[in-house]
Amino acid sequence: MAKKDLENKIKERLNSLTKPKGSLGFLEDIALKMGKIQGKVLPNLPEKKAVFVFAGDHGVTEEGVSAYPKEVTAQMVLNFLNGGAAINVFSRHVGSEVYVIDAGVDYDFPAHERLLNKKVGKGTKNFSKEPAMTREEAEKSIEYGKEIARFAKEKGFELVAVGDMGIGNTTTATTIAIALGHNLSELIDIGTVITGQQLEKKEAVVRQAISIHEPFMDPIDVLSKVGSYCLGEMAGFILECAQLNIPVVIDGFPTTAAALIAAQLNPEVLDCMFAGHCSKVKGHRVLLDALNLRPILDLDMRLGEGTGAVLSFSIIEAAIKMINEMATFDDANVSKGKEK
Amino acid sequence: MAKKDLENKIKERLNSLTKPKGSLGFLEDIALKMGKIQGKVLPNLPEKKAVFVFAGDHGVTEEGVSAYPKEVTAQMVLNFLNGGAAINVFSRHVGSEVYVIDAGVDYDFPAHERLLNKKVGKGTKNFSKEPAMTREEAEKSIEYGKEIARFAKEKGFELVAVGDMGIGNTTTATTIAIALGHNLSELIDIGTVITGQQLEKKEAVVRQAISIHEPFMDPIDVLSKVGSYCLGEMAGFILECAQLNIPVVIDGFPTTAAALIAAQLNPEVLDCMFAGHCSKVKGHRVLLDALNLRPILDLDMRLGEGTGAVLSFSIIEAAIKMINEMATFDDANVSKGKEK
Repeated sequence: MAKKDLENKIKERLNSLTKPKGSLGFLEDIALKMGKIQGKVLPNLPEKKAVFVFAGDHGVTEEGVSAYPKEVTAQMVLNFLNGGAAINVFSRHVGSEVYVIDAGVDYDFPAHERLLNKKVGKGTKNFSKEPAMTREEAEKSIEYGKEIARFAKEKGFELVAVGDMGIGNTTTATTIAIALGHNLSELIDIGTVITGQQLEKKEAVVRQAISIHEPFMDPIDVLSKVGSYCLGEMAGFILECAQLNIPVVIDGFPTTAAALIAAQLNPEVLDCMFAGHCSKVKGHRVLLDALNLRPILDLDMRLGEGTGAVLSFSIIEAAIKMINEMATFDDANVSKGKEK
Repeated sequence: MAKKDLENKIKERLNSLTKPKGSLGFLEDIALKMGKIQGKVLPNLPEKKAVFVFAGDHGVTEEGVSAYPKEVTAQMVLNFLNGGAAINVFSRHVGSEVYVIDAGVDYDFPAHERLLNKKVGKGTKNFSKEPAMTREEAEKSIEYGKEIARFAKEKGFELVAVGDMGIGNTTTATTIAIALGHNLSELIDIGTVITGQQLEKKEAVVRQAISIHEPFMDPIDVLSKVGSYCLGEMAGFILECAQLNIPVVIDGFPTTAAALIAAQLNPEVLDCMFAGHCSKVKGHRVLLDALNLRPILDLDMRLGEGTGAVLSFSIIEAAIKMINEMATFDDANVSKGKEK
């Protein structure tokens, strides 16, 4: 079926259901998008769902840009594997599996069936002084991310979320977004929880990074100079999910910066992408607007890990069930209104 | 435990979990409120949940204020009982039961185990010409609503939503809100889907109703003059849920107008109430702000039936699981940050 035909058929179906036209608002848009991704008027409910949490360390944390010591990255990875973090609780709640990817944590983890080893290096370099990584490493991180998407396909996941864990992630994401053309003033924020003095420090570090690395040639150049292994792997993951037609839900500010890189490399990724939520991080809505993605939830969360994305699974599934299960006006003998 | 002590203990627990302080935003507020309702630091997950959809007809529909014929109220009640409406789909999705209350539909329904007969009359009178009902009927509708709350308690429901069905509901809710002190200009809207001309008609009808019934003495006077049986029963239901300590989730504009009546009769009802969503109906956020309730979802829905309220159950339950199941910094050996 041609794309436009499919879209019309889905809209026709939505308008035949026992509700005023358009009265389910954004849920109707979600059902439409999922139908287009799957190429079906009545999209299947995903049988298997997973969140992929990409973890990595950032050399820039030595500048003191975060409230937390760098060690927390590795400690939180172990917390994920033990099932005690917010992402584990929410994933169990919505029936999603959790995989953690070691994209570049400065720690040697014991093997674990839920931990996927895609370590490019033991943390990036401090990008306020030198490039975070080489161009080869940036390309490798993209490729590793694509491998994770292929793993997701093999495992049969039909809806995936992308999450991040790494002390220093918001600083990196902010710098990436600026390097990709956004303004510092609309993006700089406290990340998790830092004090006013630390915020000034963070801003100075970002400015310094931009000034020593300008000009930026392309998204891979941005990634290598001011990015990180986990941001690169998330971008690669998103790119390949779109190729494999797996709907991917992005989470907070860092995952959205990764989506920005992916969308600059291939704008078609947006057709396969949902924004799980809008976080309380100031610049998040700016980036979502740039991607023309409407967030499903808006709960003032600022945790990362994929938590907002995974919570939105419940709403996405409700939209899919709606178009599949609701009675039509004809089926239910309900009179149609005189609508516009 | 004293209220303030309990609140402090819940906050202490939230801050001990492996996440930056406050980073789960509104979910932390929801967990706190649920703990206070239940009187426990670690609130129980509700074992049984239900939505109560109050249906009734409105005499004012003879003025042509809706896009749908009045018969749709009864047709939709049958659709609810057959499981084909949006509220059925979403309730199955979140594990909630559906009860429909005939508060005053102009139709004789056959008996059904999910249909509760609390019919005050066969539709109200046209309040643009005369009072919608007598004061005795208004009091009876409040009492019938309370009986439904006691039924919910007996059945063991620990989380309930209130939904509405009735052609003409938004016109009634708008008029009630104005009678309770709000401005017409910030409230008048197209309801479901009507044309510009019908909107002018609707506005004229509301103005007419206010002018012939002013002054309003108290909330019961408002209800009897410009309310409806289902609005009154919803208000009574909310009042008694608060007495019985059952957390109650309101839905769209009409249920929020009912909550406004309930809150004017007893402001303590707000301690037991959640706002499931903010609908696309223009005045809804105005009323939610007046009640100082933050909506959990905001999806441009404008359907009613309890649909937004029931979808929010998934988020409320995620918040409860979060405070119960997340590991603490000590349990997980995660370093605490230097937070504000």
